Order: sequence, then structure tokens, then C-alpha cells
Amino acid sequence: MPTFKLVISYDGTGYHGFQYQENAYTVQEALEKALLKLYGEKIRVGAAGRTDAGVHARGQVVSFRASDRIPGDRLKQALNGILPRDIVIVEAGEVAEDFRSRRDAKGKVYTYSIDNGPYPDVFLRNYSWYLPCRLDLARMRETAAYFVGEHDFKAFQAAGSPVKTTVRTIYSLTITKNNHLIVLRFEGNGFLYKMVRTITGTLVKVGQGKRSPGEVLEALRNGVRRYAGPTAPAKGLCLEKVLY
Amino acid sequence: MPTFKLVISYDGTGYHGFQYQENAYTVQEALEKALLKLYGEKIRVGAAGRTDAGVHARGQVVSFRASDRIPGDRLKQALNGILPRDIVIVEAGEVAEDFRSRRDAKGKVYTYSIDNGPYPDVFLRNYSWYLPCRLDLARMRETAAYFVGEHDFKAFQAAGSPVKTTVRTIYSLTITKNNHLIVLRFEGNGFLYKMVRTITGTLVKVGQGKRSPGEVLEALRNGVRRYAGPTAPAKGLCLEKVLY
Repeated sequence: MPTFKLVISYDGTGYHGFQYQENAYTVQEALEKALLKLYGEKIRVGAAGRTDAGVHARGQVVSFRASDRIPGDRLKQALNGILPRDIVIVEAGEVAEDFRSRRDAKGKVYTYSIDNGPYPDVFLRNYSWYLPCRLDLARMRETAAYFVGEHDFKAFQAAGSPVKTTVRTIYSLTITKNNHLIVLRFEGNGFLYKMVRTITGTLVKVGQGKRSPGEVLEALRNGVRRYAGPTAPAKGLCLEKVLY
Repeated sequence: MPTFKLVISYDGTGYHGFQYQENAYTVQEALEKALLKLYGEKIRVGAAGRTDAGVHARGQVVSFRASDRIPGDRLKQALNGILPRDIVIVEAGEVAEDFRSRRDAKGKVYTYSIDNGPYPDVFLRNYSWYLPCRLDLARMRETAAYFVGEHDFKAFQAAGSPVKTTVRTIYSLTITKNNHLIVLRFEGNGFLYKMVRTITGTLVKVGQGKRSPGEVLEALRNGVRRYAGPTAPAKGLCLEKVLY
């Protein structure tokens, strides 16, 4: 059966995450409902990254198989006409039959946004973590550099999904500030459950002077969970891109 | 009685405009409810600009009188703790007793945002007008210049509120583009009802090649309403600042 790939963007505010759940509305359910309407057959989609409730996406990738060969442009347009306004198809097209969005992903790019202004920016209230405190960006950047490379991130995950290994490679972790908005950008070959949010929470503690760069290095080298920081709120996180 | 001035920001998506209405939820109602809770007395607020349903604000100014003298910082913090998350107090403080936000305003700055991308930006869906068509920005800018200065804007308003004169002065009208986002910025001594949205609708027609700059000049010089364009949707409009 022909396989299709969709790049999708969504505002996660109104959803209980990507993945299907029995009693909660998810992005997967909204997407499969639209596909059912379009194709007239039940279609299951698989996503490259299973974003949690409140997490957003600019470049989530999903794949599915369908018997009908709808050209990419028409597929995109038709789905955007059916989908709720908080889910948008960015790209659509047929791919190799054996393509699977999750299995074939070589890496991912996430951003985490912090609103560091003197009052909360109303327009970012669902897309950032509001933190009016002073943050030492130089120290945060210095500490962020420790995470780059191949490491065992077992101290920087939430218990939950079992994984074969907790070793991952972060290609880059940059911190930029534009007016009151601080953006942490993570690029890596894969991320453990809540890893981006836990690293963010840890770096914020460093920025506040409540954790030393040395303690973070200790957590990273020896897996000491108590040196890692708390998990940052979901709403600041966004899956920007999936790398293939 | 002491008079207080608030600079407020709000996401207008969930409100039927600023001004109180019998059967619809407005920003004024939310604000007065918070003030009642804080002061324990019924307080009426007046706003510099009465934004319509769906219109946003970054720098709306309201004034009110109250018997209690709450210091600005405490007033701001207390109100932000009570108000719904889509209304934020940016600044608060006591002002001269005779200050009135509307009467004393010397001018206003509005922006109008157009999402001109190949697909709608999910995060701007409530804050911009989605227009995927080609827009000739050079022509729009050339035409925008006609509006600058003192003119009779009677062709660029919506019927509704009676005014003494339809002459207004626009100090500047700039059009900038950043990636897919086009922002029109209006600064003037005052604006007629729906004037910013009608000028925007007209400039879009020019950008699409459906109206000539000459026709717009005609509408401006002779008040010919049919040469003006349609009113752009409310959600792209934002009251940025009130000048005193």
C-alpha cells in the first residue's frame, strides 16, 4: 500500500498530547478523524515524537498507509480544510512504501521558550514558561555545553517508558535571548522521556544560582538524579523538526 | 478621589470587545470584576480605545477612581493575581486626579498583522489575517504613503458611532515583512471606527492588483467609498500604545 508522510504543526494547548487515549482528545484522534473523512477508510497514523499534553509542534512528522493515491498538494489542502484550526498540515506527499516516521527518524530539534519579562506576555502565555526572575545566561550557556555530545542521560528523564539505553547524543544546545524571550534549542539523535524539559529545569536552576555547573556535571557523569533540576512545564516545549 | 491609570494587554480572542455589553463577556467586565474583588467597591473604568470583539491590545490604557490608595506595584501584582490569564496589567499607578484615559489621549499606535505564508501559522491563527496570495509590497507601501498626513477619512470608516469630524492625522504608516509575517503599523492622532481595518483591507486590494493607487487616492480625496477596500478581520488588529 502507498505510504504518505505529513509534516504537521499544532498548538498543543487544547490536546492531551499526540497519542491516542481512551477518554481524552488527542492530536492523533483529530488527525485520524480527518483522514477517515477524506479517505472513507480507517487509517492509523504513527508520529515521530509522541508529544505530551500541552506540548506544541512546528514540524512533527507522521506517516500512514492508504489505498488511495491522493497527490501531496491536494492531500494537504483537503486535510487543512477538514482539520480543526489548531492543527495545520505543512507538507504532504507520498514516500517510499517502507518509510516509518518514528523508526526512520535520525534526530530531532526541540525548542523550549521562557518568558523572562517583567509581566507575562499575554500572547505567549500558552507557549512559554513565565519566569520573571533574574537568570544568569552566561552560566546557563556554560553549563549547557556540558550536555553536548554522547552522554548517559539517565538523571535527566522522567520514569515512564522503558528504553533499551539511556545514552543519547546532543548535537547542539544553544540559548538565545530576544527581548524578554529566552529560547533553548536542542538538536540531538533522540531524547528520553521529558529529557528536554528536565535539562531546561536544571539549566534554570543554574541560571538562578540554585545549582552549580559542577553539580550538573556530576548528575551527567554519575547519574545522580537529585542534582538534576525539576521538569519544566509542558507549554514551553515545541517539536520544531524531525531529521531523516 | 484618587485616580489610577492602568496599561493593559489582552488577547481579545475570548472577549466581545472592550466595552461593557448586556449579554456578552467583555474585557471591561472582567476588569471591573477584578477591581470589585480588590477594592470591595464597584469601580467603573474608561478605556482610551474601545477595541472590537477579537481585537487585541498590548498597551490599552484605562483610568478609574477609587477611594483606596493602593501603590502601583501592589495594584499591578494584585490585579494580575485575580484577572484571567488573557488579561495582563503591564503598568499601574496613581495619576493626576483629572486624568481621563480617553479624553487625554493625544494619539494611538495600532498594528495589523497578515500571515502571508504558504500554510497558516498555527500560533498566529488568532492574531493575524491569513492571506496566502501574492502581495506587491512596493505598491502597498507607495499607496500607504498617501494616507500619511491630515485627511478626511470618511471613505475609510464603518457606519456606526457618530463623530463631529472625519478628519484625522496619520503620523506614519509603515509596512514591514519578517519571514511570512507582514505588519502594518499605524500611528495617528485618532482613528475612526474600523478605520485601521478598512485602510488595511484597501491596501491588500492594492497589493493583489485589484485596486490601483490612483483609485485609493480618489477615495481619500473625494470620499468615494466604493474605491476603498473591505474591512480586514478583527483578529489581526492590535492596539499597541496610547500616546499622551
